[in-house]
Amino acid sequence: MASGTRELTVELGERSYPIYIGTELIARTGEMFAERGFPVKSPILLVTDSSVVGLYAAKVEDSLTASGYSVTRAVVPSGESSKSLAMLDDLVEAALKAGLDRRSTVIALGGGVVGDLAGFVAASYMRGIRFVQIPTTILAHDSSVGGKVAVNHRLAKNIIGAFHQPEFVLYDLDTLMSLPPREVRAGLSEVIKHGLIWNKEFVAWCDENADKLIALEPDALGYALYEGCKVKSIVVSRDERENDLRAILNLGHTIGHALEAVAGYGELLHGEAIAIGMIGSARLAARFGYSETIAGETERIFRKFGLPVRIPAEFKTESIMSAMLHDKKFLEGQMVFVVPTAIGSVEIRQDVPSSWVSEIVDGLREGI
Amino acid sequence: MASGTRELTVELGERSYPIYIGTELIARTGEMFAERGFPVKSPILLVTDSSVVGLYAAKVEDSLTASGYSVTRAVVPSGESSKSLAMLDDLVEAALKAGLDRRSTVIALGGGVVGDLAGFVAASYMRGIRFVQIPTTILAHDSSVGGKVAVNHRLAKNIIGAFHQPEFVLYDLDTLMSLPPREVRAGLSEVIKHGLIWNKEFVAWCDENADKLIALEPDALGYALYEGCKVKSIVVSRDERENDLRAILNLGHTIGHALEAVAGYGELLHGEAIAIGMIGSARLAARFGYSETIAGETERIFRKFGLPVRIPAEFKTESIMSAMLHDKKFLEGQMVFVVPTAIGSVEIRQDVPSSWVSEIVDGLREGI
Repeated sequence: MASGTRELTVELGERSYPIYIGTELIARTGEMFAERGFPVKSPILLVTDSSVVGLYAAKVEDSLTASGYSVTRAVVPSGESSKSLAMLDDLVEAALKAGLDRRSTVIALGGGVVGDLAGFVAASYMRGIRFVQIPTTILAHDSSVGGKVAVNHRLAKNIIGAFHQPEFVLYDLDTLMSLPPREVRAGLSEVIKHGLIWNKEFVAWCDENADKLIALEPDALGYALYEGCKVKSIVVSRDERENDLRAILNLGHTIGHALEAVAGYGELLHGEAIAIGMIGSARLAARFGYSETIAGETERIFRKFGLPVRIPAEFKTESIMSAMLHDKKFLEGQMVFVVPTAIGSVEIRQDVPSSWVSEIVDGLREGI
Repeated sequence: MASGTRELTVELGERSYPIYIGTELIARTGEMFAERGFPVKSPILLVTDSSVVGLYAAKVEDSLTASGYSVTRAVVPSGESSKSLAMLDDLVEAALKAGLDRRSTVIALGGGVVGDLAGFVAASYMRGIRFVQIPTTILAHDSSVGGKVAVNHRLAKNIIGAFHQPEFVLYDLDTLMSLPPREVRAGLSEVIKHGLIWNKEFVAWCDENADKLIALEPDALGYALYEGCKVKSIVVSRDERENDLRAILNLGHTIGHALEAVAGYGELLHGEAIAIGMIGSARLAARFGYSETIAGETERIFRKFGLPVRIPAEFKTESIMSAMLHDKKFLEGQMVFVVPTAIGSVEIRQDVPSSWVSEIVDGLREGI
């Protein structure tokens, strides 16, 4: 690896894999395939989206062909609507026409949408082939680690999917430099989330280095992504299939997903929605008597990062509550919430009265 | 279990599961769910098809509700065309509307089509929930064991799927009594296949007991299904994800799948197509110098069971060869064939000249 590249391993026995974080990495994709003994005779499918294709696809392809691989490009429209069974059908067709076999690889080059979609293609094509993640957004530091892949159904997000771990994750910081500022901030929301659930020193570090992170200063950004991925990988190592512990990664997501559903996916960025959701969870912490100060502290940090901390005025509490009931964070009829007990630690509660949730949603509306 | 019920275990570590073979079993479904601690609060989806629903669905449902479970029925049209992404979409919608959660179960009540489809729903709904197989055909003794689930793509069969093991398999012989004779014979073709790859004594037993099997004599049938499932479960235990050994189960399938594709799925029953395919493989055995007698012996046994042993005259060799090239039994550009070396043992060959295959296909045509 180039000097300055950070490396960390997701420990999952024989499915363990490395995450590389650094600069000038994607030009070395072919080399990394060869080092790992990926067979040159088995074609590769590179899945990317319409926003990313012009920026980085050729670089990845050139690197692969220089190492003797044959690669076919499949481009999907950017945006959440590509996470569909119809797109799975199209990509399987592309894979068949490109001659992908059991030893082939699907590469996801893009953000979370491309990762989730291409990952599900890799998980289900011939019942599972190799998969490599090349994330190009900050938000994707979360989705590209841990093997959760899925497409949406008209009635529910991420409802059709699999656990399918990548062979490796190649996080090239250069691809983040062109991100729009709003996406940068929203992506950092998930980075901070990893601190809030597991590592208070890292939250303090983010708080101190907010300006550097927002300005995409490479060393600060590399460190933050490394720490964020580290929390994710520790949690995934201990509970790959979300039997218990892994659910803590959903901090802010119960309310957050409902806000996204009400907004129509894409109106509110995912990182923005869960920022508001995390403040909601922190207010639950006060109701449970864990702490009165977490909500204010979380809100202060999110404001520093320019993230929204209130629910848009036009979102009705009723619609938000109803969207929560249709989410999959339900177990035997009970709502499941991740609630912070302090900065850097959380508990999973299955005994949250829905009246508390609706009061908190009411209280989080803009203008109150 | 009722007396006379045969039980065997598919050994897969923490994913091990039992297969029960006997009479009067489906009326005990609810009891078996309760014994295993399946949560009564989590709804069940019963997937079945239009031919089976009127015969056994109510019996399964009554048994479950008597044990306190709530179950929703989803009926798909019978036939291979139900193994589609469109049907997956419909069944996920049914599961969502029925309120299935992470602890819910999908039951497949039917033949291989229902098992493969419902199994893929269970594998991908919320990234994987519990799955129970209640096969109602002889052929399904093969597909219901081993966790291979899938749907078809317009361009290729079983190309979108997963490995998802059931919690248990409930094989009620009573459900086989109404099978049409042609389906009985075709189902027995897969039973004999398990003998041909692994157990020559069992092949001899089938040969001697052909009349009893064709007449569906319960004890003979129960024994044959037990022995067939045993071979399958041993092979699956040693190589769940078909890295090497499991491929031996594909004896007869390289040519067989191609014949099905050329016939249009459903024209030639699966068991019929692979019977012809197994004779083709046995003729390859002679070309490789393993043995001159396997092909004749295999053909004699299949004739005794009333199975087809020749390719219909109207199937062109060219079309069959081309269908083989589009199948997924390819690795790095090489055709993969399972070739018998004697009755009861096989080898996997990746060095089969396509000229040999086309000569054998030519020679197997009716009227030659």
